[in-house]
Amino acid sequence: MLGRKLAAALTGTTELAGRRIARLTLTDLEMPAPSAVSGASATAGAPVAAGAPVTAGAPVTAGAPVTAGASATSSASATSGASAVSGAPAPVLQTLGADIATPGLAAALVESQPHVIFHLAAVVSGEAEADFEKGYRINLEATRSLFEAIRARGPGYRPRVVLASSIAVFGPPLPDTIDDSQRLAPLSSYGTQKAIGEMLLADYSRRGFLDGIALRLPTISIRPGSSNRAMSGFFSSILREPLNGRPAVLPVSDTVRHWFASPRAAAQFLMHAAGIDSARLGSERSLNMPGLSATVADQIAALRRAAGEHAVELIRREPNPAIEAMIESWPRQIDGARAQALGFRAESSFDEIIRTYIEDELGGRLPSGMQRSHDS
Amino acid sequence: MLGRKLAAALTGTTELAGRRIARLTLTDLEMPAPSAVSGASATAGAPVAAGAPVTAGAPVTAGAPVTAGASATSSASATSGASAVSGAPAPVLQTLGADIATPGLAAALVESQPHVIFHLAAVVSGEAEADFEKGYRINLEATRSLFEAIRARGPGYRPRVVLASSIAVFGPPLPDTIDDSQRLAPLSSYGTQKAIGEMLLADYSRRGFLDGIALRLPTISIRPGSSNRAMSGFFSSILREPLNGRPAVLPVSDTVRHWFASPRAAAQFLMHAAGIDSARLGSERSLNMPGLSATVADQIAALRRAAGEHAVELIRREPNPAIEAMIESWPRQIDGARAQALGFRAESSFDEIIRTYIEDELGGRLPSGMQRSHDS
Repeated sequence: MLGRKLAAALTGTTELAGRRIARLTLTDLEMPAPSAVSGASATAGAPVAAGAPVTAGAPVTAGAPVTAGASATSSASATSGASAVSGAPAPVLQTLGADIATPGLAAALVESQPHVIFHLAAVVSGEAEADFEKGYRINLEATRSLFEAIRARGPGYRPRVVLASSIAVFGPPLPDTIDDSQRLAPLSSYGTQKAIGEMLLADYSRRGFLDGIALRLPTISIRPGSSNRAMSGFFSSILREPLNGRPAVLPVSDTVRHWFASPRAAAQFLMHAAGIDSARLGSERSLNMPGLSATVADQIAALRRAAGEHAVELIRREPNPAIEAMIESWPRQIDGARAQALGFRAESSFDEIIRTYIEDELGGRLPSGMQRSHDS
Repeated sequence: MLGRKLAAALTGTTELAGRRIARLTLTDLEMPAPSAVSGASATAGAPVAAGAPVTAGAPVTAGAPVTAGASATSSASATSGASAVSGAPAPVLQTLGADIATPGLAAALVESQPHVIFHLAAVVSGEAEADFEKGYRINLEATRSLFEAIRARGPGYRPRVVLASSIAVFGPPLPDTIDDSQRLAPLSSYGTQKAIGEMLLADYSRRGFLDGIALRLPTISIRPGSSNRAMSGFFSSILREPLNGRPAVLPVSDTVRHWFASPRAAAQFLMHAAGIDSARLGSERSLNMPGLSATVADQIAALRRAAGEHAVELIRREPNPAIEAMIESWPRQIDGARAQALGFRAESSFDEIIRTYIEDELGGRLPSGMQRSHDS
C-alpha cells in the first residue's frame, strides 16, 4: 500500500533529493496494475520501462531511481517500491512483480545503481507472529540481501536507502512519551526484525556501504483497501469501513491510545527522507516520525463529525483481550522533535486524517448513502 | 579462551543447572589439545567421547551438555564451547575442531539435545571491523543457524542457551553509569552483531524455541595467552606481559576508565547463567554483568603492588589516537544490580584480578625473574 502511495506521489513530482526523477521502479509481490499508480505512464510487468520516451546518453547518475522490494505477503498493503533511466520528460514508471526474497533479485534491482532506494518490503506484525519463518525470511534475510547487493556494487556506489521501520521496535516498560533515548525492546517478531533492520542499516551506513535512514512510522490510518494482517488493522477499519457504509469491528476499548499518521503523510515522510543530509543524522540513523497521539474515542468522535452518528453505529464492539494486551505494549505518544527539526510533518487531528482519506481514496466526497447520513 | 576456561571449570564440578554433568562437548575452530582443558579425561578430535566410561541406557535427558561453536577466527581466544552422555563418573569431555559456520554443523551439535548450550563463538571487535564479511558470517549468520538448528528439533526441545554478548552493544551518548534502560547503540560491527544476537535470542525465547540468556560481559582482563584481535587487548597485555617479564605497549592514556572482570569470573558468570530460572528474567533476556570500573592507572598501580616497579617499567607508552577514540566510546561503568540480585559476582579490585591470573595461569607464583624484581 505504502509503496504504491509513494510511487503515486513520486510520479506527481519531478524532483527527489534535489535531482530530477528519471525512472521509478515499483517492485511488489503482486504485480500492480498500471492504474493502481496514478499520474504516470506505466508499463506493468516489463522489466524495462517503455511507457515514456527514454533519452539515451544522459548520465545514469542523473536519475533518481527508487526501489523497494515486495514482500512475499499476498496482501497488497505489505510492500512495494519504486526505480530510472534519465532524461524522460515525466518519470518512467516500471512495475515488477517479484518476491523480494528471490535469490538474485536484489542484485538485479540495484544493477542500474538507483540513487534512492525505498525499502518497504515487510511481512506485517500479525503474519510475522503467525508465520515465524516467513517473517524472518522477508523482514530480516531479504533486507540484508538488499544491503549486501548494494555493498557488492563496490565503493563507487552509495545510495540513500530509506528503510520503513516501525514503533513496534519499542516495548514495555514504556514512558508516556517516547524520546530518542528509548531503548529498542520489541515484544513481537515483527518488531524484532525491524529493530535488526535498523541496526544493519546503521552499521552499513557507518561503514560507508550505503547512506541509510530508517523511519519509525506511526501506525498508518486510514489504510485504504482491505485489511492486512497487521494487528493494528482495526485502527483503520473502524474508520474506513463506516466511511464506505460498511460495518467494522472494534476489538479494544475506547480509551486505548496510540500514535498515528495518514498514508499521505507517510508517503511524504519517505520522500522527505530521500533528501535529508546525512551529516545531520550523525551515527543515529533511525528517526521517530512525527504523528498524532489519539484514543479510539478520538477517532470515533472525528468519524461522527465527518460522517454522522449513522457511520459510528456501524462500529460493533467485540473485545479481544489478546489484541488489547498487544496494543497496550505499544507506544502511545512519541517525541518527534528531532524529525520535526529535520522538516518532517504530520497531521494534527483525526479530522484532518479523515479529510485526507476522503480526498485521496473517495474522490473528495463520501459515498451517497453516507452523505445522506451525514446530512440528516 | 573463554570456552576453554568454561570447559575446565565445568570438568571441575559435577552439576550444572541442578543436573549432573554427563558430557561436555567443546567445539572450537582450532582443535584444542586435551591438555588445554584441565581436570577431565579428554579425547581430542573424536566425534564421540571415549575417554571415560559411558553408561548406556541412562536417559539422554539426564545429561547437561554444553555446546558452543567455534568461530572461524584463528585466534584461540575467539571461541569455544563445551557437550553429554549420561552416567559417567566424571564428565566426559569431547573436543571437536570445526568452523561454527560450516553448513550442518549446528544441527549436528544439537542432535543429542544438550540441556545447556553456551554460545561463545565470535569474531572479535578488531577483526570484525577489518573483515566485514567474516564478522557477519560468524557473529550473525552462525548464531542464527544455531538458533534455527535448535528450533528445528521441535517443540519437545527447549535448551538453556547462554549467549556471550558484550558491553560493545552500547555507544555514545553514554552516561557515567549504564543501567538496564540504556539503549543499544553500537558503534562497531562487532557490537552491532552482538546486539542483533541478543534480539534474536529474546525473540526465539519469547516464542518458546529456546530459553535464552545473554550476558553482556565486561572486558576480560587478564586474558591468558597471546593477544587476539580485540581492540581492548591492551587492557590484558599491559599486565600479562610484565607479569611474565616481557614488554608491553600501552596505546591510551592512564586516565582511560573501563569495565572489567577476570576470565575466572567470566567462566563463573556463564556457569551461573545456566541455572537461572527464566521466570526471573521476564522478557528482558540480556543482563549487564557485574564487574570492576578501573582506570589504566588503577591497573598499573595493582601491577606495581603485585610485581614491583620493574614490572611497571616494562610498559611502553605508544599513544594511538584511533584506539583511544574507540575506547572512549565504550562504557566506563555498568550498574550490575540486576545481575547481582540474580547471584552473579565479580572481582572488586585489580589486585584480586592479578591474583586470579597468577593462580590460574602461572601456577600460583610469578616467574623467577619477576619475583626477584618484586622482592627488590
